[in-house]
Amino acid sequence: MKISLEDLPYIATGAAFLGTGGGGDPYIGRMLATSAIEEFGSPELVGVESLADDANVYTIAMLGAPTVLVEKGACGDDIDLALARLQEYTGRRADAVIPIEIGGVNSLVPVMAAARTGLPLVDADGMGRAFPEIQMVTYNVHGVSCTPLVVTDEHLNSLVVNTGSAKRAEDLVRVCAVEMGCSVMLSSYLMTGRQVKDSAVTGTMTLALEIGRAIAAGRKAGDPVAALLSALRATPYYNHCKVIFDGKVSDLQRDTRGGFSVGLCDLVALDGSEASLQLTFQNEHLVARQGDVVRAIVPDLICVVDRETAEPIPVEGLKYGQRVKVLGVSAPPILRTPAALQVFGPAAFGLDDIFQPIESL
Amino acid sequence: MKISLEDLPYIATGAAFLGTGGGGDPYIGRMLATSAIEEFGSPELVGVESLADDANVYTIAMLGAPTVLVEKGACGDDIDLALARLQEYTGRRADAVIPIEIGGVNSLVPVMAAARTGLPLVDADGMGRAFPEIQMVTYNVHGVSCTPLVVTDEHLNSLVVNTGSAKRAEDLVRVCAVEMGCSVMLSSYLMTGRQVKDSAVTGTMTLALEIGRAIAAGRKAGDPVAALLSALRATPYYNHCKVIFDGKVSDLQRDTRGGFSVGLCDLVALDGSEASLQLTFQNEHLVARQGDVVRAIVPDLICVVDRETAEPIPVEGLKYGQRVKVLGVSAPPILRTPAALQVFGPAAFGLDDIFQPIESL
Repeated sequence: MKISLEDLPYIATGAAFLGTGGGGDPYIGRMLATSAIEEFGSPELVGVESLADDANVYTIAMLGAPTVLVEKGACGDDIDLALARLQEYTGRRADAVIPIEIGGVNSLVPVMAAARTGLPLVDADGMGRAFPEIQMVTYNVHGVSCTPLVVTDEHLNSLVVNTGSAKRAEDLVRVCAVEMGCSVMLSSYLMTGRQVKDSAVTGTMTLALEIGRAIAAGRKAGDPVAALLSALRATPYYNHCKVIFDGKVSDLQRDTRGGFSVGLCDLVALDGSEASLQLTFQNEHLVARQGDVVRAIVPDLICVVDRETAEPIPVEGLKYGQRVKVLGVSAPPILRTPAALQVFGPAAFGLDDIFQPIESL
Repeated sequence: MKISLEDLPYIATGAAFLGTGGGGDPYIGRMLATSAIEEFGSPELVGVESLADDANVYTIAMLGAPTVLVEKGACGDDIDLALARLQEYTGRRADAVIPIEIGGVNSLVPVMAAARTGLPLVDADGMGRAFPEIQMVTYNVHGVSCTPLVVTDEHLNSLVVNTGSAKRAEDLVRVCAVEMGCSVMLSSYLMTGRQVKDSAVTGTMTLALEIGRAIAAGRKAGDPVAALLSALRATPYYNHCKVIFDGKVSDLQRDTRGGFSVGLCDLVALDGSEASLQLTFQNEHLVARQGDVVRAIVPDLICVVDRETAEPIPVEGLKYGQRVKVLGVSAPPILRTPAALQVFGPAAFGLDDIFQPIESL
């Protein structure tokens, strides 16, 4: 299918929901993709099965603090340069682009890249949600090297990075991103079509579109959160889902530290009960606790939405007094394997809790 | 000529003197070059006139905090990788290596590189002294781009950096160097033989060797500082030189800040007079003041030596109570042009003073 201008608001909303608090502001993502499609035309969205096993597939993403991207944007030339520099360095001509994660910006930056370059966009990603660090990707879990990778900024400065591990690349790229103004474009995890088929979370661009459409339809019908839950239950991955809290934001600690948005968000119930919930986040929500009880935990998705409109609220959009519903949603099975949990399970974020699937909580 | 094991102590001492407080510890530099020559043999030192105009000349240097290099050293593979990666990236095969600056370590790292690779070493550099930042090089003053440049560490992680300006490269490489453990190898300012002839400070490896030999001979004859001054007067660049102070260190403020050694060193006279001198440094000495009177100022050289042995004392070796002589030495004319002063004159270091040649002070 072609991605049309009309699809973009739905993709942005659905992706922001699956971004679980991170992955960027959907308004920014939509604006970036809209201007690219208006100038260069609609890109083709293709399934992983259509990729030749020896195709060269390039990831493209924004990396940095989402709080900064709101003001800084992306110029497009930085995207072109990242892809061009990595092709030039490796000598492998790009056959397609693919997202590294799902999020309000990072699902739309690849749309922008595909529109600008004329390359097809693969309907898949490496998380089925968003995560804050470069090594936290199914591509890495399945042995794809994240380097050589290229970082570019809006002044068209660029870096080609080669490291022995994805975590080392993360540490280096993070300090560079801070020095380059806290948000950069990143092309990494250059893969073959075969590697995409073996390691990606498939169909997630289409799922984001469907989730976004369901929310919009639910608004017309009068219960967008119920429509959202129905849509999730119809997906192959996100089918275990529930509202784990209905309340308002009573306290918020949010810092931009080490290139991340980190903090805590406290919620209290609206029904007059003593119930409360605390969310811990690093760009994305990591754990939701009610007192000592874990209600949902990474890599499962913890998503905060406006309680009336089901509009996803990113961590940088959280505000005191906001009335919200918090949803717990099952992660795709490829994210719950022992090997995957080592890379982005609770311990990878310094949490002492063990992973428990949302359906068991 | 071939650089022999016997030459290394003299080169290291002479280079440490011309390093004007920075450029690294000569003991470390000597050890690194000694082990390379023992394993790979003596490298050939060649004059700039022997370079073909289209020869590809690669700089190689250590960048970071000298205090860390004392413990960390250099493994050699990091040097090989920096040169190999930049050749691979540019497709230009190296014909020779050249120092970027003169200093106790950074005159010897290129010796090590030449020994390891079998490439000739060019008898020249880009400062005729040491400076703390990547953009402060005659190569830059004459329009040679410092990028693409390559940074490597001892774990063989690497970065290829492309920026619009040398100052931007400096800022990026500095944060990477800190993240990579505070010392890295750097290959930058890839030049043609023609560019070397137009922009380098020539003959400085030989001059370092001669200055080191003069100090050693002076120790045998009983007056090493006098021997040092005679040797400087016989050079084409450093011929305006004098002892501007004879005293001892009475106060010292030295911080490691932003990846640099910065601070102030106060000296008092030994003759019972009220005379005092204050040195301001950022890795290298920048200005020497007696009250309000400037006695010597960057880019001229301010060199602190042991008053009995004329052993050069780097800023990290300054100690309370040390008895020293401070010399002011003329910088090579290529460092004193208006264009050069814009890049590494007093204003480039935030000093309000204007440059005045040592011979006029």
